[in-house]
Amino acid sequence: MKNIQQLLSELPIRSLFKESRIGIEKESQRVTLSGELATTDHPKEFGNRAFHPTIQTDFSETQVEMITPVANSEREVFEHLASLHDVVRRTLPENEMLWPLSMPPVLPENDDAIKIAKLASDKDVAYREHLAKTYGKRKQMVSGIHYNFEFDSVFLKQLHEKSDSTQTFKDFKTDVYLKVSRNYLRYRWFVTYMMGAAPLSEEGYFTGCPKGRPNMPVRSIRNSNFGYTNDESVFVSYKSMDDYATSIQKLVETGKISEEKEFYSAVRLRGGSSVAAIQEKGVGYIEIRNIDNNPFANYGITEEQIKLLHYFLMLMLWLDEAPIDSDEWLREGERLNNQVALENPLAPTSQIEEGERLLIAWLEMMESIESSDDDIGLVKELGRLLANPEETLAGKMLTEIKAQETQEKFAIELGNTYQASAWEKPYQLAGFRDMELSTQLLLFDCLQKGISAEILDRQDQFLKLSFDGKVEYVKKANMTSLDTYVVSLMMENKTVTKKVLDQAGFKVPAGKEFTTKEDAIASYAYFIDRGIVVKPKSTNYGLGISIFKEGASLEDYSEAIDIAFKEDTEVLVEEFLPGTEYRFFVIGDKTEAIMLRVPANVKGDGVSTIAQLVEVKNQDSLRGTKHRTPLQLIELGPIEKLMLKEQGLTVESVLEKDQVVYLRENSNVSTGGDSIDMTDEMPEYYKEVAAKAVQALGATISGIDLIIPDVDAEVTPDNPGYGIIEANFNPAMHMHAFPFAGKGRRLTLKVLERLFNGIS
Amino acid sequence: MKNIQQLLSELPIRSLFKESRIGIEKESQRVTLSGELATTDHPKEFGNRAFHPTIQTDFSETQVEMITPVANSEREVFEHLASLHDVVRRTLPENEMLWPLSMPPVLPENDDAIKIAKLASDKDVAYREHLAKTYGKRKQMVSGIHYNFEFDSVFLKQLHEKSDSTQTFKDFKTDVYLKVSRNYLRYRWFVTYMMGAAPLSEEGYFTGCPKGRPNMPVRSIRNSNFGYTNDESVFVSYKSMDDYATSIQKLVETGKISEEKEFYSAVRLRGGSSVAAIQEKGVGYIEIRNIDNNPFANYGITEEQIKLLHYFLMLMLWLDEAPIDSDEWLREGERLNNQVALENPLAPTSQIEEGERLLIAWLEMMESIESSDDDIGLVKELGRLLANPEETLAGKMLTEIKAQETQEKFAIELGNTYQASAWEKPYQLAGFRDMELSTQLLLFDCLQKGISAEILDRQDQFLKLSFDGKVEYVKKANMTSLDTYVVSLMMENKTVTKKVLDQAGFKVPAGKEFTTKEDAIASYAYFIDRGIVVKPKSTNYGLGISIFKEGASLEDYSEAIDIAFKEDTEVLVEEFLPGTEYRFFVIGDKTEAIMLRVPANVKGDGVSTIAQLVEVKNQDSLRGTKHRTPLQLIELGPIEKLMLKEQGLTVESVLEKDQVVYLRENSNVSTGGDSIDMTDEMPEYYKEVAAKAVQALGATISGIDLIIPDVDAEVTPDNPGYGIIEANFNPAMHMHAFPFAGKGRRLTLKVLERLFNGIS
Repeated sequence: MKNIQQLLSELPIRSLFKESRIGIEKESQRVTLSGELATTDHPKEFGNRAFHPTIQTDFSETQVEMITPVANSEREVFEHLASLHDVVRRTLPENEMLWPLSMPPVLPENDDAIKIAKLASDKDVAYREHLAKTYGKRKQMVSGIHYNFEFDSVFLKQLHEKSDSTQTFKDFKTDVYLKVSRNYLRYRWFVTYMMGAAPLSEEGYFTGCPKGRPNMPVRSIRNSNFGYTNDESVFVSYKSMDDYATSIQKLVETGKISEEKEFYSAVRLRGGSSVAAIQEKGVGYIEIRNIDNNPFANYGITEEQIKLLHYFLMLMLWLDEAPIDSDEWLREGERLNNQVALENPLAPTSQIEEGERLLIAWLEMMESIESSDDDIGLVKELGRLLANPEETLAGKMLTEIKAQETQEKFAIELGNTYQASAWEKPYQLAGFRDMELSTQLLLFDCLQKGISAEILDRQDQFLKLSFDGKVEYVKKANMTSLDTYVVSLMMENKTVTKKVLDQAGFKVPAGKEFTTKEDAIASYAYFIDRGIVVKPKSTNYGLGISIFKEGASLEDYSEAIDIAFKEDTEVLVEEFLPGTEYRFFVIGDKTEAIMLRVPANVKGDGVSTIAQLVEVKNQDSLRGTKHRTPLQLIELGPIEKLMLKEQGLTVESVLEKDQVVYLRENSNVSTGGDSIDMTDEMPEYYKEVAAKAVQALGATISGIDLIIPDVDAEVTPDNPGYGIIEANFNPAMHMHAFPFAGKGRRLTLKVLERLFNGIS
Repeated sequence: MKNIQQLLSELPIRSLFKESRIGIEKESQRVTLSGELATTDHPKEFGNRAFHPTIQTDFSETQVEMITPVANSEREVFEHLASLHDVVRRTLPENEMLWPLSMPPVLPENDDAIKIAKLASDKDVAYREHLAKTYGKRKQMVSGIHYNFEFDSVFLKQLHEKSDSTQTFKDFKTDVYLKVSRNYLRYRWFVTYMMGAAPLSEEGYFTGCPKGRPNMPVRSIRNSNFGYTNDESVFVSYKSMDDYATSIQKLVETGKISEEKEFYSAVRLRGGSSVAAIQEKGVGYIEIRNIDNNPFANYGITEEQIKLLHYFLMLMLWLDEAPIDSDEWLREGERLNNQVALENPLAPTSQIEEGERLLIAWLEMMESIESSDDDIGLVKELGRLLANPEETLAGKMLTEIKAQETQEKFAIELGNTYQASAWEKPYQLAGFRDMELSTQLLLFDCLQKGISAEILDRQDQFLKLSFDGKVEYVKKANMTSLDTYVVSLMMENKTVTKKVLDQAGFKVPAGKEFTTKEDAIASYAYFIDRGIVVKPKSTNYGLGISIFKEGASLEDYSEAIDIAFKEDTEVLVEEFLPGTEYRFFVIGDKTEAIMLRVPANVKGDGVSTIAQLVEVKNQDSLRGTKHRTPLQLIELGPIEKLMLKEQGLTVESVLEKDQVVYLRENSNVSTGGDSIDMTDEMPEYYKEVAAKAVQALGATISGIDLIIPDVDAEVTPDNPGYGIIEANFNPAMHMHAFPFAGKGRRLTLKVLERLFNGIS
C-alpha cells in the first residue's frame, strides 16, 4: 500500500483519520472505607450478572468491572465511564468504596479469603479457578484499564480506495490493525513511562520472597513481568493474521494457555467470538490492555489520557516499521517495556532518546492532519514529562505517598474523596448532566440494572432501552409504550380529561365553556350560590383567572368573564373546590408517590432576618436554578418583597422562632416552593381513587392532582372527599425522587419495572 | 306550586328555562328516483340493525328511521339530523332517494309488496305483523317526526326549590311534564295548523272507498283521524302519573292495544323502559309525535321549526290550565285538532281567535324570559301565518303542487334535489362542516356503521366512540389507542425515526447532525463524491435547504452549512436520494393507500391561456381554500408567475394541446398540487417495505414517504430500490379518500375496523 503519510496528506482522508470508536473496560477492587478488601458479595442491586452489559465482576467477587458502550469520541467514552462510576459508587454498601489503584489493597493472608467471582456459569467459575491455580489468586487481584479502539469505517474504506491496494478491504483492514498492533507492542514502553501508575505493592501481593522480586518503587509492577502476565515462553506472532491465529492455536494445543482468552498481550486483535472468527471476518478493532488505573483521576483515567492514547494509536499507524523481522521487533518491545516498567519512577528513562524521536514524529503527524492547538499542546506536554520523570503518574504518586507516609493511606484518602464526590449531587448522573433530571435518574437505573440505553436524541431526551432481548423507547423518562397516543392527547386536553373522568363517576369541578360573553352571562344561573373559578381555557401563568370562593354576584361574574376573555377566545367557568392540592403519581394500577407542594417559605429562629433565612435555606444542595436541581432557589425579587410587604414585613425583618413566613402565593417548586412527600401519610382511599381515575382515563403513567379539604374527614356518597383538577401526561419525576422533606420515591425504576420483566 | 310565571320573573331560573335537551326521530320512505316505493332491502352498509343506534327501519323495510343523539341545543339537534341525512342518502343505491313527504308514495296494490322490516328479532317482526293486521299495512307507511324534549335538570331543580313545593323532586318533575303534556294535547291543533304538511294522499293509501274519507285537500291527513291513530275508544288520562299508568294498563289488559307502545298519543311520557318504570322513576322527558315531514326542508324539519317547538313546549308550561276536568280538556283538544287537521289548507282556521290568544301569551312569555329579538321575530311570524293560511306548510304545498300538476311530481322533484345535494361535497358531512375533513369522514363512517360518536372537544377534533360495549377515543381521525405514546413521539423526531429504521435494516438517507460549523466542515469527507442535502434540523417551509444532486465542493458545502445555520442551531447533512416521492399510508401490517403528489399544473388544450386553464381546473368541487376541501385552489401569485417566467411563459400564454406546465416546484397539495392514487399500480414489494418499516417503528397508523427512482427497476441486495424519507404520525387521510385522479380510499373506515370488531 502507498505510504500512509502521503495518503493522509490527501485532504478527505485526513479529517476522517481523527474519527474513531472507543470503548473502555475498567476494573477496581471494592474495599471498606478504611481500605480493607470488601467481604460482601457483589451488590444484588446490579441484578443478574449473567447479562449485565456494563457492570460485571472480573476475577474476584470484589473486583468490579465497568464496561462502557462503544463511543464515537473521547468525551463520550469518558462520560460513560463517569456515569458507571456514579452508579457503582452509589450502589455500594455504605462503608465501601472503590480502591483507586491498579495494585490491590492489602490482601488477606489466607487464599480462601480471596473469593472468586460468584458467577452463575460453571464454566466461568472453572476458568477463574484454573487461573487461580496457574497464576495464584494474588496476581489476579491487580486491576487496570482496557482500551478498545476502532478506526472510523469510512476512513478505512477511503484509505483502502486511495491506497491502490490490491487487497480485499477485509485483508487491508486486518493489515492496518496488525501494523498498529506491532508498533504498539514495540513502543508500549512509552505508555508505561507516561501512564504507569503501579510503583508499589501492598502486603499480600508478593507472598514469601519470590525470585527476582523487583526493587520497588518502579514505574509499573503491573506492566512488568511481576504483573499479571503469561509465562515467558508464551509468544504470539503479529506478522500476519494467519501467524497470529496459528501461534495462539499452538499455545492452546500445547496447554501453555488453557484457552485463547488466557493470552494476556498488551494488544489483542478483536472483532469475533474467537480467533478463528476474527480470521474469517477480518480484524474489527483492537484491545489495548496495559493502562494502569490513574489514582489522580476520579474514574481511573482522564479525558486527556483517553485522547492521548487515541493519538498514540494513530501514530502507530503513521509510523513506518523498522525493516527487520517483526517477531524480533515485538520481542524488542517486550524487553524495552519491562525495562522501563521496572525503572525508578523518579529517574529519567533509559529510552529518553527514542522517546524524543517518537514525540517529533507525533507532532509531525498532528500538524499534517491539522490537529487543534489544544491537542498539540497535550502532546507537547508529554515532552515535558519525558524530561521530568517526577511529573509522570508514578513520579507524582511517589511524591504524594511520601507526604502521606504510605501508599495505603494515599489510596484510602483518594478513594474516600471520590466516593464522597459521587454523593454530592445524587440526583445527577455524571456524563449526562446536560440531560433532564428525570432522564438522568432513569439512566442511573438502567445502568444499575443492566438495561442497555442508547441515546437516540440527546436534546429530545429520547432513549432506546434494551433488556433481555426486549426493546423499549422512552422519551423524557415517562413517555413510553405503556401509554397510548390518544390517552396522552386526552390528558393534554383538560376539558376532555374532565368529561371522561366525570362520565366514569369521578368528582371533577363542574363547569361550562363559553365562546361569547353573552352565552356566559346567560348561564350565570348555573353558578349562583357556589364558589367558582372564571378562567381563560388556556391558562398562562394564572393570567385572567378570578376566584370567587363564596360565589359571585352577577356584576362580579360579568367582570370576571371580561377579564378572562382578554386572555383567550374560550372561557371556562368552573366550580371552586376548596382544599389542599396533592399530586398523586400513578403508574399502572398503583399510586406510587404523593407530593404536597408548599409555597416558598422560611421558618424563623428568633435571630436571623428573612434574607439570612433564605440564604441558609438556599444552601441545600437540592436547590439550584433552571431545573438542574430537584428544588429551585428561593428568590427575593419584586413578587416576594410585595408578598412580605402585604404581611407587614421586609427582607430585614427578624422572625420569631418557628414563625413560618410565605414568600409566594403559588406552591410551584419552580418558584422556590418546598416538595413534601406524603406517600406514607395519605389514606389508602385517596390512593385508590387516584389510581382508578388514571385507569378510567386508560392511562398508565400520570400525575393526577386531587384537591382534598381534609384527608381525615369521613367520606360519604354525597361527599367523596376530593375533586380531581387535572391529570398530567408528562409529570415531573425528579421532585418525587428528591423531595425537600419526606422519603424519596424512585419512580423511574418503577417505570422500568413496568417496561421490562425481571429487573428487580 | 307557585305560579310559574311569577317564578320565572326571578332572575336565575329565567335564563335556565331556555336550556333543554332535544332529540329527534325522523322516518322517510325509500323510493326510486322516479318515486316508486323501493323494492331493495335496507342497505347492508348500515351494518347490524340489532344495535344501530341512529339508523333503523320502522314499520316497513323501506321506511328508514333516523334517530339523533340527545342534543343540548336546537342547532345541535338540527346538525345531527343533517348528518344522518347525508349518511343515509350517500349510502342508498344509486337510483334511490328519500320520499320527502309524510304521506307515502303510491303504494303497490298487493299488500305483500309492502315488506315488513326484516329485523333479526322475532318479537319485533311479530309486533309489526300485528300492526299490519290491526291497522292495515298502508297506514303504517305514513312517516313523521318525533320530538323528544327534556327541560334542563338545573332549571327543574331550581324551579323545585324556588316553588316552595312540598313534593319530592321526582313528583314535582313528573307534574311539570304532565302539565306540559296536557296543555300540548289541548293546544296541538296550533302545531297542526302551522306545521301540518299532509294535504293529499297518493294512490294506495286509501283502499276501496272508506267510510268518511276526508274531503281533500286538508291540513294534515296524518294528524287527523284518517292518519295512523288508535281506535276512538282508546283514551288515556294525563291527570296524574297514576291515572296515566292505570289507563294504559287497562287498555293492554282489555286488548284494545297489544302493548304499551301501541298507544299512539301525540305526547308520550318517557324516561323508562315501561310505563311502570316511568311511574317508579318519575317522568324523564316527553315525546312529541305529531310533526309532519316538512317537504320544503332538506331534512324534513327546519332549525326554526325545532326552535318554535321548543318555545311552544315552554309555553305549555307557562300557560295556566283551564279549571275544568283535565280528561275533558284533553278530549276537547283531540276534537279541535281533528277539526283543524281536516280544514282546507287555504281556508282560515276555525280556531283563529284562540290562536291569537296563544300568540299573545307566547310573546308575553318570551319578553319575560328575555328572549332574543330574532326568536321573538320567529313567533311574530307565526301571527302572520295565522292570518294567511296560504303561507302555512300545507298552504304552500298546495300552491306548489298546483304548479307541478301533482303532489307526486312535486315530491319527486324535491326528493331528487335533496338527494343530489347530499353528493355536492361528498367529502363533507352536514352538521360537522366546521370540523377537519378527516374527522368528517370518520364521523360519516361512524354514523353509517352504528358507532356512537360523542364529540368531547370540537376544536380539538376529539371524539369518544362506542360500539358494542367498547369505548375508543380518537383525535383528528388518526390518533388512537392503536399507537403508543412514545411511537408518536418517535415519528415526530425525524432523527430518531431514521436511526430506528436504519437499525432495523431499512434504507434511509445516511447523514450526520452538527451543532457547529467546525464539526460540519471536519466531516466533509463523509460526503464527498455523492449527492447531499444540507438543511436545518427543523425545517420551516424549506428555508435554509441546499441540495447538491451531484455532490458539493468543499466551498459549496461550507456555504450551504452557513445558510442552514442561519435557520437553526442544528444542521443536518444527508445523502440525497434521487427519485419520486410516494406517500404510503399504512394501517397495522398493511399498506392501504399510496399517493403520488404532483406540483400544481395545467394541461393545454391549444386555445386557452394558462389563466383560463387554471380557472377551469379550479372549478373542480374538490378544490377550495383553507383545507376545507381535499384539494386546494391553484393560485397565480408571485411564486407561480416566477415559475412561469423561468419557463418563458406568462399567465396569458396559450398552451399547446396536452402540453403540461408546472406552476410550482413543490408537490404539496396545499399549494394546488394534484393527488393521484397509485395503490393499485404500485408493486407489492414496496407496499411490503412500507408496511414492515411502520411495524419496525412499532407504529400502527403512519404515512411513510418513500423515494423510488423507478418502481419497475430490479431490486438487488445492494439496491433496495427505495429510501425512506420520513414517517408521519398524523398523516392526512382525506386526500386519499378524494384524490384528484385514481380511486378513493376509505382509510377512516379501515381505522375503525382496527378499533372495533364486527363493523363491516
